Amino acid sequence: MPDYRVIGHSAPRVDAPEKATGRAVYVAEVRLPGMLVGKVLRSPYPHARILRIDTSRAERMPGVKAVLTSRDVPAHRVGLVLQDHYIFARDRVRYVGEEVAAVAAVDEETAQEAAEAIEVEYEELPAVLDPEEAMVPDTPLLHEELGRYEFGAWGQQYGRPMRPGTNVCGYFELRQGSVEQGFREADYVFEDTFRTHSVHHGYLEPHACLASFEPASGRVTIWSSTQRPFLVRSYISLAFGLPVSQVRVVGTWVGGGFGGKGRPGHEAFAVALSQRTGRPVRLVMARDEDFALFRAPECVIKLRIGAKRDGTLTALAMEIVWDTGAYAEALNYGRGPLEALPGPYDIPHVSIASYTVYTNRMPASAFRGRLMPQPTFAIESAIDMIAEKLGLDALELRLKNLVDEGSRNAAGQVLRGVGARQCLQEAAKAIGWGRKTAPNRGIGLVCYHKYPPPPYPSSAVVQLNEDGTALVQCGAPEIGQGSQTALAQIAAEELGVRFEDVSLPLYDTDHTPFDAGALGDRITTTCGNAIRIAAAEAREQALAIAAQMLKVNQGDLTVEDGRIVVRDAPEIWTTLPRVCAAAHTRLGGPIIGTGTYMGGLHLRGGGEPPGDAPAVWKYGAQGAEVEVDPETGAVRVIKLVSAQDVGQTINPLSLQGQMDGAALMGLGLSLWEELRFDGGRVANPNLMDYRLPTALDSVKGENTVVECASPTGPFGAKGVGEEGTVGVAPAVANAIHNAAGVRLRELPLTPEKVRAALAAKPA
Amino acid sequence: MPDYRVIGHSAPRVDAPEKATGRAVYVAEVRLPGMLVGKVLRSPYPHARILRIDTSRAERMPGVKAVLTSRDVPAHRVGLVLQDHYIFARDRVRYVGEEVAAVAAVDEETAQEAAEAIEVEYEELPAVLDPEEAMVPDTPLLHEELGRYEFGAWGQQYGRPMRPGTNVCGYFELRQGSVEQGFREADYVFEDTFRTHSVHHGYLEPHACLASFEPASGRVTIWSSTQRPFLVRSYISLAFGLPVSQVRVVGTWVGGGFGGKGRPGHEAFAVALSQRTGRPVRLVMARDEDFALFRAPECVIKLRIGAKRDGTLTALAMEIVWDTGAYAEALNYGRGPLEALPGPYDIPHVSIASYTVYTNRMPASAFRGRLMPQPTFAIESAIDMIAEKLGLDALELRLKNLVDEGSRNAAGQVLRGVGARQCLQEAAKAIGWGRKTAPNRGIGLVCYHKYPPPPYPSSAVVQLNEDGTALVQCGAPEIGQGSQTALAQIAAEELGVRFEDVSLPLYDTDHTPFDAGALGDRITTTCGNAIRIAAAEAREQALAIAAQMLKVNQGDLTVEDGRIVVRDAPEIWTTLPRVCAAAHTRLGGPIIGTGTYMGGLHLRGGGEPPGDAPAVWKYGAQGAEVEVDPETGAVRVIKLVSAQDVGQTINPLSLQGQMDGAALMGLGLSLWEELRFDGGRVANPNLMDYRLPTALDSVKGENTVVECASPTGPFGAKGVGEEGTVGVAPAVANAIHNAAGVRLRELPLTPEKVRAALAAKPA
Repeated sequence: MPDYRVIGHSAPRVDAPEKATGRAVYVAEVRLPGMLVGKVLRSPYPHARILRIDTSRAERMPGVKAVLTSRDVPAHRVGLVLQDHYIFARDRVRYVGEEVAAVAAVDEETAQEAAEAIEVEYEELPAVLDPEEAMVPDTPLLHEELGRYEFGAWGQQYGRPMRPGTNVCGYFELRQGSVEQGFREADYVFEDTFRTHSVHHGYLEPHACLASFEPASGRVTIWSSTQRPFLVRSYISLAFGLPVSQVRVVGTWVGGGFGGKGRPGHEAFAVALSQRTGRPVRLVMARDEDFALFRAPECVIKLRIGAKRDGTLTALAMEIVWDTGAYAEALNYGRGPLEALPGPYDIPHVSIASYTVYTNRMPASAFRGRLMPQPTFAIESAIDMIAEKLGLDALELRLKNLVDEGSRNAAGQVLRGVGARQCLQEAAKAIGWGRKTAPNRGIGLVCYHKYPPPPYPSSAVVQLNEDGTALVQCGAPEIGQGSQTALAQIAAEELGVRFEDVSLPLYDTDHTPFDAGALGDRITTTCGNAIRIAAAEAREQALAIAAQMLKVNQGDLTVEDGRIVVRDAPEIWTTLPRVCAAAHTRLGGPIIGTGTYMGGLHLRGGGEPPGDAPAVWKYGAQGAEVEVDPETGAVRVIKLVSAQDVGQTINPLSLQGQMDGAALMGLGLSLWEELRFDGGRVANPNLMDYRLPTALDSVKGENTVVECASPTGPFGAKGVGEEGTVGVAPAVANAIHNAAGVRLRELPLTPEKVRAALAAKPA
Repeated sequence: MPDYRVIGHSAPRVDAPEKATGRAVYVAEVRLPGMLVGKVLRSPYPHARILRIDTSRAERMPGVKAVLTSRDVPAHRVGLVLQDHYIFARDRVRYVGEEVAAVAAVDEETAQEAAEAIEVEYEELPAVLDPEEAMVPDTPLLHEELGRYEFGAWGQQYGRPMRPGTNVCGYFELRQGSVEQGFREADYVFEDTFRTHSVHHGYLEPHACLASFEPASGRVTIWSSTQRPFLVRSYISLAFGLPVSQVRVVGTWVGGGFGGKGRPGHEAFAVALSQRTGRPVRLVMARDEDFALFRAPECVIKLRIGAKRDGTLTALAMEIVWDTGAYAEALNYGRGPLEALPGPYDIPHVSIASYTVYTNRMPASAFRGRLMPQPTFAIESAIDMIAEKLGLDALELRLKNLVDEGSRNAAGQVLRGVGARQCLQEAAKAIGWGRKTAPNRGIGLVCYHKYPPPPYPSSAVVQLNEDGTALVQCGAPEIGQGSQTALAQIAAEELGVRFEDVSLPLYDTDHTPFDAGALGDRITTTCGNAIRIAAAEAREQALAIAAQMLKVNQGDLTVEDGRIVVRDAPEIWTTLPRVCAAAHTRLGGPIIGTGTYMGGLHLRGGGEPPGDAPAVWKYGAQGAEVEVDPETGAVRVIKLVSAQDVGQTINPLSLQGQMDGAALMGLGLSLWEELRFDGGRVANPNLMDYRLPTALDSVKGENTVVECASPTGPFGAKGVGEEGTVGVAPAVANAIHNAAGVRLRELPLTPEKVRAALAAKPA
């Protein structure tokens, strides 16, 4: 491993002092003069026609400054991916919680009362609440006009994958080899169906935004607790027909996102209310409201896998149905992980059919792990089931089929920097694979991979100040994941300065260059690469000026310990502060470097392999030991181990935090968390009835870091935030099977399901 | 002239809607939660020793949160040019108004009372109140330690021009040819002394700042009504020992500056108070306080000019004394215009000695016209006096000696784009040179030049949004001069987009690249060039992506009417919005260009000619017709004409506004405005007793725009804000002489002085 000065060291989190002292400002704490409070009236029905809206009583209430419905906002459909919705529901609502009207008033109570005073008359329509049911012919349609919908800028790459006349808004397929042949070659064909559930993203700060429309200039400024500020800008621009340059999104700290803050939308209500009133309008979701906004997408996975007697996998066929809810901004869920769906295995024949379907439930939004936890639950359960069937050791079966350095995967890419095998071996060692466990206890082990971040771009600007300190401009939001710290480390490493000499102000879309947002582990790699390119450019400019000052060739200079020295004559040197002072006052002008990077797996329509696009695939393995109470079915996780191939560690302490946090989050969605629906309504929209894991739920863990450098990540890094959620559910499910002999095919793994399975088990 | 789409057209001012509707936010209107009010206690003596400060009574007052003196702030000297002062006075005060202590309290009244409750015991010292007196040997010294002072980053280029043991903090000289020889060749040697006065800068928004220190991060954010935000950042960084990256200055609108807001300083009191209290502290100057902060530098000019009988000028010797007041941040006044001091004339032998001296009056700060109005009053009065003496027409004498295309000036530069002759001829025509005037009326005519902006850098970043609109990052403040509009026009022209598609957010030093500030007409040229370079780079990136999309060579593409077309096949085309959308989602990444420009006359020490550094010299001429009341001496200006060589007009309407405003400001300082001192105290520190011109004082004018393109300005532009003040005083003085036969050598040209001169006139 190269010896780095800044990366690989636990630089203190730049946001820690402000957050630890409670001084960090979140959106709900931003105060503007004359600010009003907004409140949204939402549909109580999963599917209904709007017959009449009467806002007159609400409008007459003292303290109410505006009451808006679809009549008051632009009448065109919106959507960054698929333009299938309006700002406010028009004529029809399609999920419980859909926005029907909004009010702005002088305080929270008045706003709430006014929202309740709006009279809406509905005619209920039959609701489609299940994704499989949604696909059945003659099921009521959610979107009769599906075939006429336009794609937004972020959906152009999909071709037109919708199936008009059905509830399928996206169909994608991937074929490699011939599964028919693969199944013919198999000695055993596994076939089963798995189901995952809807969970909430569990961030602690509810959705909140604040919009201030400036009537004189026509510009609007927005503060939003979002993962994707530049997409909020795009969305508002499209929704209100404003040039992008007239919309500004200003950064604050964000109290978690985990995918739940990746979809712009509610900012439009604050903007509309501010436009109408000429005053800033704040919109902070109540917890129960927030619980009904978005959910992690749930899916149904029908899986067939062919295997030879020796465990060689010959074919994989998957039909996967993603429930996107009432609107399809999440259309890419069906396309996103297509090439990753076979798991980290070298399977010659693959056929995948992926459906994204509408249902009358709230929309889905990506979830930590980027759509890998769901299929991994199916695949890794299946691998254990196949091993059992064939009488083989599950670890051996995995190792036999695992991708390796130089493998070509289902994306058609030759893989480099593949840590899968090492991760699996480390996890097996850590969990004690093969050892005899105590009664009612069992061990589960899984391996997984994760596909590269999406091909969304980041740009960065690195400015050197007159004292040699650096300002890094980058549009990525810090949502608690530690990206500000990691990116500052990358900049400091590349510039050759100390960590504390780099400052990375929060984004402001009026100033910082474009970034597609915090999702899919893309910040470290994509933003990190953009910053590294910009920093290198700045460093070269500094060396050019130093060469002038020292009267030497630029090529002979190098940066060492904060000094710029002549490589073979170290007694000739200057310092970056001196170079920067000269640049500002007499030599050439301030130093400023830029970088743009568009990483990730380039998506193409219709299963066409993306070729050798730059891509950072990631690998990991997890193991669990559980104890199953044979009476109650309760599952206690005794130990949870994770081995993760991070490419190159940027910040060891942050990495441990991410691995611990992801593992606990993985446990939550495996065992406890579940959005329960009553009709289309969330029945447990609060932190009392929705069981988020707390610190008390953390279990004995062991994290192993594997570093197989990525050829394209910055310094080889791969991004680390999401992986730890991916393998937990199947590891626990496999451990339950190992402990109690029962196989659960549906998440979460509740005591009720275990007990039912135990009861159904042949004696 | 080339045919431009955007420049040369009167694009509407981007700041107009907000300002006209009263919604534009100035510093005093920024509200932060928990904000305190600061107040500064100032010295009542021009020169005194501080024997004792007792803050105890003030500290005990309810509502007072902090009382600070020099004990509470870093003890090192500060200064961006010369480090000759402390944050608060230590041991000694050197002018009436010098800061001795500061308080922060919950409201204005409490702060005021607390400041008054601070007891300071002084021992008065003899004060030096006159710049000529300051140079007399054995005059009391203001700065005994002058020889040990360090230069700041912006004074390094001066060598060490101070004369320790005297009150001269800067001595510079310039020699060309041999004046002795020049005077020997002359038939007549003119010799006289001229004096200019102290005036206030007359902006309407008093100095104001707001500082918010964040204890958790150690960062400080500042809002300030300043012309030089990045120098405020430097100053606070130096004063408090903070890395530059820990200091942030955020832009607001600024209600005028005219040079009076070019010196950082009072921000330090707000920062210190905020650091102590942990709360934001606002400091807004009362009008009388503001009137005593800074003044335009006054000077004494001893002039000798040699001329042949035919009017050919053979030699010019000048001794000029600049009164910098108690501190020498304005040291560059002595150096700045050195090469411009001979005026726009081709004089073979020149000798200039320039002294900057300390006096016990408030510090001087640059003034619109950048130190040219003062010497121009002397030179242009002298030219008329020489013409009279030699019996020549003053216009002919000027034309005979005027610089021309290809002349080499006292800076050693070969001049290009010289509009002097054309300006003079236009102004002569407009004022009706040579015509017979009514009784008691007379005509005056002058010509002038102005030296290039200082060699201070600007950087710019141009980002293209996904819809083809542009965001231009530039650190220059808009102080009312219209730079945001002009710079947006330059960007739009170069990018090939519409004016309204360019947005130029106000600076924020955390984000926008470095700019040295709004002074010396540098924004249009230096910032304009940086933006033009950045825009060109962005445009080329866009063409590269368009070439990929259209499958043509980039070199064959051109931008026409918002379309990108193949030059010889205009049917093949795309649009910038399409290119930008593709760049953001699939091709190459967002488009971002950068530019850095370090224009101006590169200063060198000791009179060494700066060679052929890129330089934008400017030219103009002004004529006045006045009527003198022989009884009262009152002067009424009947007409004032200005001809100005602007190189290339950027915005015709803005240009007219600048020319009108500068002419009126010139009239103010010629006739009405004067800071009157009682000892070292300003006796008329308010808008009742200090006679600023108003709209009612505007006179019939005529502006002629001459466009001799500069080879180095953006599109040939030269900057236009300051010139109109330069020639007014000598034009009026010459007209008074023409009307009444009296010659005034001292500004302002008051009725008292005219009457006294009339009385002293030989019958």
